[in-house]
Amino acid sequence: MTDPNAPRPTVSVCRSCRGSNPDLPPEQRPGVVLSQGLCAVEPGDVAVQVVDCLGNCNRGPSVALQCAGRWQYLFGEIDPVTGPADLLAAARLLAVSTDGLLPWRERPPALKKGLIARLPPLQSP
Amino acid sequence: MTDPNAPRPTVSVCRSCRGSNPDLPPEQRPGVVLSQGLCAVEPGDVAVQVVDCLGNCNRGPSVALQCAGRWQYLFGEIDPVTGPADLLAAARLLAVSTDGLLPWRERPPALKKGLIARLPPLQSP
Repeated sequence: MTDPNAPRPTVSVCRSCRGSNPDLPPEQRPGVVLSQGLCAVEPGDVAVQVVDCLGNCNRGPSVALQCAGRWQYLFGEIDPVTGPADLLAAARLLAVSTDGLLPWRERPPALKKGLIARLPPLQSP
Repeated sequence: MTDPNAPRPTVSVCRSCRGSNPDLPPEQRPGVVLSQGLCAVEPGDVAVQVVDCLGNCNRGPSVALQCAGRWQYLFGEIDPVTGPADLLAAARLLAVSTDGLLPWRERPPALKKGLIARLPPLQSP
């Protein structure tokens, strides 16, 4: 059950990721397919945004997972087809995390293998 | 000159990074040397914090650069000796950025080569 008081997590998908095949037409790039899959779900409890580059071009498709007051995660090599369900599950885990971390054991396997980096919760200005 | 209204950026250094030599004693690990160098500067306009892991273990030493309302950056392979000056310069650039991005041209060369990933500004809860 979703906690109505939990902050809303955001999943940011890089649309520029070309994957291992640089000759794919733009509409078939894995980043585009993944972003379309995520946007098609339209989850009310998870914000989805498409961005231009997450700087992880060698290990795309790349996705950032963020939520206020939590550690922030950058994942790579996300499967465009199975990725959306994994990412939404992880976003919901992060939103209800009590220690600010995405729990390792419950994390979908693709998001264990695909961890690129994590950043601390953003400090207040 | 520092803009007194600019938000205060934060540099987070991973103390766990072992670099290419796993046999170094803890006090000589590049992450420890780098964090000591940054903490020794004690800049008033840039917050420095030491964290345990930024998930970029293969390309350490790792550092996160963050500032409210800005894109957030993760750098790797930072030189423990020259890194502090580069990171403080970049933090000050990010703090006064008008488009939320760390400008490419003015960025220290080590932070061009060492970019691991960038994450969007954190969305409001």
